[in-house]
Amino acid sequence: MSSQFSYTRIAVDGSARAGIYHTPHGDIPTPIFAPVGTQATVKSVTPAQLHELGASLVLSNTYHLYLRPGADLVAEMGGLHSFMQWPNPILTDSGGFQVFSLAGIRKIDADGATFKSHIDGSMHRLTPEKSIDIQQKLGADIIMAFDECAPPHDRAYNEQALERTTAWAQRCLQTKTRDDQALFGIVQGGVFDDLRIKSAEWTASQPFDGLAIGGLSVGESKTEMHAVMDKVVPLLPQDKPRYLMGVGSPEDLVNGILRGIDIFDCVLPTRLARHQSAMTLTGRINMLNAIHTHDPNPIDETCSCYTCQHFSRAYIRHLISAREMLSSTLISIHNLYTLLRLVRLCREAILEQRFTSFAQDFLSQYNHPVK
Amino acid sequence: MSSQFSYTRIAVDGSARAGIYHTPHGDIPTPIFAPVGTQATVKSVTPAQLHELGASLVLSNTYHLYLRPGADLVAEMGGLHSFMQWPNPILTDSGGFQVFSLAGIRKIDADGATFKSHIDGSMHRLTPEKSIDIQQKLGADIIMAFDECAPPHDRAYNEQALERTTAWAQRCLQTKTRDDQALFGIVQGGVFDDLRIKSAEWTASQPFDGLAIGGLSVGESKTEMHAVMDKVVPLLPQDKPRYLMGVGSPEDLVNGILRGIDIFDCVLPTRLARHQSAMTLTGRINMLNAIHTHDPNPIDETCSCYTCQHFSRAYIRHLISAREMLSSTLISIHNLYTLLRLVRLCREAILEQRFTSFAQDFLSQYNHPVK
Ligand SMILES: [Zn+2]
Ligand SMILES: [Zn+2]
Repeated sequence: MSSQFSYTRIAVDGSARAGIYHTPHGDIPTPIFAPVGTQATVKSVTPAQLHELGASLVLSNTYHLYLRPGADLVAEMGGLHSFMQWPNPILTDSGGFQVFSLAGIRKIDADGATFKSHIDGSMHRLTPEKSIDIQQKLGADIIMAFDECAPPHDRAYNEQALERTTAWAQRCLQTKTRDDQALFGIVQGGVFDDLRIKSAEWTASQPFDGLAIGGLSVGESKTEMHAVMDKVVPLLPQDKPRYLMGVGSPEDLVNGILRGIDIFDCVLPTRLARHQSAMTLTGRINMLNAIHTHDPNPIDETCSCYTCQHFSRAYIRHLISAREMLSSTLISIHNLYTLLRLVRLCREAILEQRFTSFAQDFLSQYNHPVK
Repeated sequence: MSSQFSYTRIAVDGSARAGIYHTPHGDIPTPIFAPVGTQATVKSVTPAQLHELGASLVLSNTYHLYLRPGADLVAEMGGLHSFMQWPNPILTDSGGFQVFSLAGIRKIDADGATFKSHIDGSMHRLTPEKSIDIQQKLGADIIMAFDECAPPHDRAYNEQALERTTAWAQRCLQTKTRDDQALFGIVQGGVFDDLRIKSAEWTASQPFDGLAIGGLSVGESKTEMHAVMDKVVPLLPQDKPRYLMGVGSPEDLVNGILRGIDIFDCVLPTRLARHQSAMTLTGRINMLNAIHTHDPNPIDETCSCYTCQHFSRAYIRHLISAREMLSSTLISIHNLYTLLRLVRLCREAILEQRFTSFAQDFLSQYNHPVK
């Protein structure tokens, strides 16, 4: 474990918690949503804009950075904070998820995975040692154990993947040397209670700095996702942060926080923005819809983001029609702000011991806006 | 002429002048470079970024806005300042240049031009009256007379086009009613001295608020461009601003200012940015060049823009390789800043009566960087 990180729990409301995760690059108020900067940039926003909208933790992807521009180059440029000019906390994943979802896998064995780059078809190999080595070169504050994410309903696959994930986690713990990085372990096991419990108990027993739940939002139902959290979270230590990987719709955030999750990340806000979809606390809005053509109102009248403080729906729709890049930037700013605002509202509700009713109200009106 | 506009000449150095153009949306220090926001957005930068890099006047294109989203919609949204959220001065062109360069022309006659939209092939007609009507709806501070821009070396075409431009200019003067807009006349005549002189004398004699030189940077040589300015500018009144339309490379700015031009606009900085080309005061840099792969230095060590204050060439090259939109934003910010910085440096040199040597030094080293 790293002495440079600590989690302070400030308030508890049911299973929900509000806290602060202290890192060498600053404090992260939890619960928190981390915008995703896959290729060392949160798509279509500058770090200054990201800072202005209140982001603290940003995630970047090891798989992508390893392939391009390469971990050695990032290290040569002073590490990821310096390279992408994000002075606040950064988290990198292990590369595992992308190897199993994005790359062409050629061979997976007890030692690691051999895969084909989705960029140029070149062959590469990732092992737990290699993933930690890359992540140490990248230099994010929070790094992740190399794990295998299996299809959620395949029992045999999940049994085997969990064995590998456990063995790889031990090798990650042994490999990691940097004290200014926190290593998080990952709970796997698909939708299978016994596997999830086994994985949670083992991961919780290890000297990880934080605990993550992986293998969710990959095809299972919402009910199944919630059931996994209900089984896993109670087995995790109270004094370490909990991270639900790759999950980030508004209702998933609230459901996760209700069950004791502290950290979320998702590409959703920026991806939806590139597809003209604006997120609000009551549902999504297709900004290309003709009903916005003459609308002088902002995307969300209750929103304080740069976009909503300045621009009409009519203007944003015009930008989309005219294929102007600014539409992605403006909607990304709004979408990211919306999720950061949501976790801030959740945190305030927890601090004021009214989170259960906040969550009930939120979930009952989400996608059912009041007329 | 509009009483809400006035040009104050502060200093003269040879033919070069430093001044202030007072408009209802603020003062424009001249000489000035106006970034182009063709479709009511300067591509890939927000108004906040534009403001931060010191822009004052921004140009938008009547032809594009007329076709999409339409002048009535912009008027309904409170005009262009409100629609695109640029609170400082705005200039719109007349639409003429795009009708003759971008659209499919079907018929041009003494009354106006019938053309085919480059967007959807629909048929439209622009006349001097229609152009002014559209520009009054858009509501820019500076609006332009509807003119015809002919191929520079075609004598017969230029004679006919100049006759139309003169007749159309009179109709524009008669049509314009808004007192919070300044109407500029346009000098045409290709590369032909007698036509340019005739056009300059006539345009200077009319109650325009400012004078523009059109039909340059459309295929003629630099020598020819300079010769036209040398003939035209001395015939223009000292107490009105002079605008060289569509010209904006660094050497063109300096050569124009040397000859007494006050206002420039050009798509070059943002267009080059989208093609990975960075502008500097000594020449252009292809940011995709492999020599930048490991370069920790900014695009331009002498530049104070947001991009150069934060990001390495290595990072910008990575963004380009990874096809990340942020590369366009970062290079656009730098390129726009570079031209705004150049006109600011020119203005300071004029105020300090050392512009001739500044211009000589600049032009002698441009594209011949000192090692
Ligand atoms: Zn907003
Ligand atoms: Zn710069």
